[in-house]
Amino acid sequence: MRLAKRVSDMTGGGPDGWAIYYQARAMAEAGQPVTNLTIGEHDVRTDPAILDAMHRSARAGNTGYTFGAGKPALRAAVAERVELRTGVRTGPENVIITPGGQAGLFASHMVLCDAGDRALFIDPYYATYPGTIRATGAEAVPVPTRSADAFQPTAEVLDAHLPGARTLLINTPNNPTGVVWSRPTLERVADAVTRHGTWLISDEVYDTQIWEGEHLSPRALPGMAERTVVIGSMSKSHAMTGSRLGWVVAPAEVVTAITTLATSTTYGVAPFIQDAALFALQQGGAFESAIAEPFRRRRDIAMRVLGGPNPGLRLIPASGAMYLMLDIRATGLSGNAFAERLLAEEAIAVMPGESFGAAAAGHLRVAMTIEDNAFEDALVRIAAFAGRVVQEPAL
Amino acid sequence: MRLAKRVSDMTGGGPDGWAIYYQARAMAEAGQPVTNLTIGEHDVRTDPAILDAMHRSARAGNTGYTFGAGKPALRAAVAERVELRTGVRTGPENVIITPGGQAGLFASHMVLCDAGDRALFIDPYYATYPGTIRATGAEAVPVPTRSADAFQPTAEVLDAHLPGARTLLINTPNNPTGVVWSRPTLERVADAVTRHGTWLISDEVYDTQIWEGEHLSPRALPGMAERTVVIGSMSKSHAMTGSRLGWVVAPAEVVTAITTLATSTTYGVAPFIQDAALFALQQGGAFESAIAEPFRRRRDIAMRVLGGPNPGLRLIPASGAMYLMLDIRATGLSGNAFAERLLAEEAIAVMPGESFGAAAAGHLRVAMTIEDNAFEDALVRIAAFAGRVVQEPAL
Repeated sequence: MRLAKRVSDMTGGGPDGWAIYYQARAMAEAGQPVTNLTIGEHDVRTDPAILDAMHRSARAGNTGYTFGAGKPALRAAVAERVELRTGVRTGPENVIITPGGQAGLFASHMVLCDAGDRALFIDPYYATYPGTIRATGAEAVPVPTRSADAFQPTAEVLDAHLPGARTLLINTPNNPTGVVWSRPTLERVADAVTRHGTWLISDEVYDTQIWEGEHLSPRALPGMAERTVVIGSMSKSHAMTGSRLGWVVAPAEVVTAITTLATSTTYGVAPFIQDAALFALQQGGAFESAIAEPFRRRRDIAMRVLGGPNPGLRLIPASGAMYLMLDIRATGLSGNAFAERLLAEEAIAVMPGESFGAAAAGHLRVAMTIEDNAFEDALVRIAAFAGRVVQEPAL
Repeated sequence: MRLAKRVSDMTGGGPDGWAIYYQARAMAEAGQPVTNLTIGEHDVRTDPAILDAMHRSARAGNTGYTFGAGKPALRAAVAERVELRTGVRTGPENVIITPGGQAGLFASHMVLCDAGDRALFIDPYYATYPGTIRATGAEAVPVPTRSADAFQPTAEVLDAHLPGARTLLINTPNNPTGVVWSRPTLERVADAVTRHGTWLISDEVYDTQIWEGEHLSPRALPGMAERTVVIGSMSKSHAMTGSRLGWVVAPAEVVTAITTLATSTTYGVAPFIQDAALFALQQGGAFESAIAEPFRRRRDIAMRVLGGPNPGLRLIPASGAMYLMLDIRATGLSGNAFAERLLAEEAIAVMPGESFGAAAAGHLRVAMTIEDNAFEDALVRIAAFAGRVVQEPAL
C-alpha cells in the first residue's frame, strides 16, 4: 500500500543530520562518558511552582475540551505581554494558543500557503523548517546567508528570492547561529517583504535570551503588523519544553483561519496547561531572567575562552539564544567530519553546521546546555582539538 | 493580504451547523434555563487519581521534550491493549501517541493522501471529518447512508464510491448515530476496500461504549491489518477529553511516516500526560465501565421512553456511544427547524441532523451527557413536542 508522496517530500530524501546526536545518545546509554552539546533544551526542569499551578487547575475540574483559540485569560495575558514588549497594539483577537511553537509554525504556513506556493526560509535554519513547509505542500526555498555577515540576509539576496514568494520565515534570536539580528537587518527584511507583498513569519521563541543588543520584533516596524505572523512559546522562556504551549500573534483574520484549522488538527490545548502557562507568565521578568541566566553565564565563558583568535576556529559573535556557532573552515574539515572526529577522539558531541543548511557548512553548533565547568572544559578541548587539526599535514 | 485558498476550502463555505449550540450557550450565559443536549462530553471530570499520577510524573522531572512516536511504556501499553481487545498482533512499532484522536485523524489523512486525492467518509459524519480531509488538500467525498439501514453503508454505495479513492474513513461506534456497526457491515467494508485497493481509516474512539452487540475493529478482519489505520483516544474511555491524548495504530511504515510528520506539526506529546494516560490504562476494565455506565443508564432510559412507537419521532436503534439519533421526518420539519423550535419553545438544545451531513437531514442528535432525571424529562418533552407538531395543521 502506497503512502502519500508528501511523506517522501517532507524529508527531502537526504540524511537528517542527527547522526551525531544518536551516536552520542547510544554512547551514553552504553555507559561511555560523553559530553553532549547537541541538545537545545535547558538543563533544568519546569519549575515546581508552575507544575503545582497546573495540578491545582486540573484538580479544580479544568479537564474538558477547550474549543477555539484558547482560554480568554491566557490569550489576554499573551496579548498584553506582546504589546508591552513590542509597543504594538495587540488584543486577544490577535492571539491563538497552540500546542507548542512548532504547531504554530506549521499552522501559519498552512493558512498562508497553498500547495505549490513558494515559501522562503533563511539558511542556516532550525532543523524542522523545510519539512514543516513541505508538509503543507508548499515549495521550501532556502535564502542563503554568509558566515561573514553573522548569517543575516543581505538586501541583494532578499530581492533575488522574494519575487513570487508567499512567505518568508525568519528567526531571531537565531537557532542555530546564536545571533540576535540587528535593527538594520530587520528593517531590510521589512522593506523587502513590503515591496514584494510577502507575508513575514517571525519565529521569536528565544526572545528572552538576549546577551547583547536588544530583541526587535519585526511586527513592531512601521506597517508590519498587518503582514507579520509571530511565533511564540513558553518552551525556552520558562523551561516548559515538554508542556507544548505556544502561540501565534497575527492579524485577526489569520488567527481566525488558524482557529478553523485547529478544529481539524489539534482540537485545542489542555486547559490545565493553559492555566499553568498563565501562572508562569504572571511570575514576571525576574523569573524569566533566572531561566535565561545559565546561558548568559555560559556565553560569557565562551567569549572568554573562544572570543580571541584561535587556530582553526572562529566564534560567530554570540548575542542570543542557547547556542554558539563555530566557524571551523580553517581546519580544512567539513562540519560533519570535524564533529565525527571530535566525538571519536574527545567524546564531545556537537551538531555539524551542515545539519542546519548549506550556508552553515564548515561550522558547528554548540548548545550551551550543560553545567558551567563541564561546558568550559569542553570549549577548551574543542579549541585545542581544532588547533591540532590545523597542524596536521595535509593528506 | 491574501490567505491560502485552503482556508476557505476547509469550511466548505456553508454554515457550520453549530448555531443551536452557540445559541444555547448564550442563553445559559444570560441566566436563562436551558437543557443542553448538544455536547459530546462526559458530565464528569477526569478522575483525581489520574490527575495525581500526572502531577507525580511532572514533579519527578518529566517535563522535557519527548521526541518521536511517544514514550516506550505507553506505546507498549496501547499495543498490548489493542492486541488484547482485537486479537490482532500489535507491537509498539504499530503505535504512535498523538495529542488527541483528532490529531491522529489529521495525521493519517496527511500521510495517506496527496493533494487532489479522493478521500471518502461516511455520511452522516462527525463534524470535523470533511474539514480535516480538506485541510490536507484531498477531495472530501461523502458516502451516503440511509436512516432505514441504521446509517450503515450498503455494498452498492461502497462500490459506487470506492473506485479511485485513496482512503475511506469510518466510525464505529458511531457519532452522531449511536449505532455500533454490525459484523456484516464491517465485512462488507473490508471486502470493498480490499477489492478497490483503498486504505481504511477506522475511528474507534467510542470503543468502550457498547450497549448492545460487540465492537468489532475492522483491523481484526482477515488481511485488514495491513491496510487499516485505527484512531484511538483516552478522551471518551477515560473522560480525559481535555488532556488531548490519542493514538494511531497502523502498519509500521505508516507509524514512521506520521512520526516524521509530527516533527513538523506537534513535536511530541507532554510526557506527564503520557504518564497519566499509562496510569489510566493500568486501572483496568472496571474503571472504564464506570466511565461508560452513565451513558448505558441513559440509553436504557431512552429505550424505555422512546423505544416504542411515538407520533412524529423514531429512535434509531441505539447500540453505542454517547448519542441518540432521532428521526423526526414524520413531523414534516427539517432537523434545523425542529431544533430551533425546540430551543425556542421548550428550552431544549439538540443538534440538527443536518449538522452531520445530508444523510441525517430530518434527524436530531441527542447527547446523553446530562444527569439521568433531567435527561429523562427532556426526552419526554421532546417526544411530546414532536407529537404536537405532527398534529399542527399544514400551513
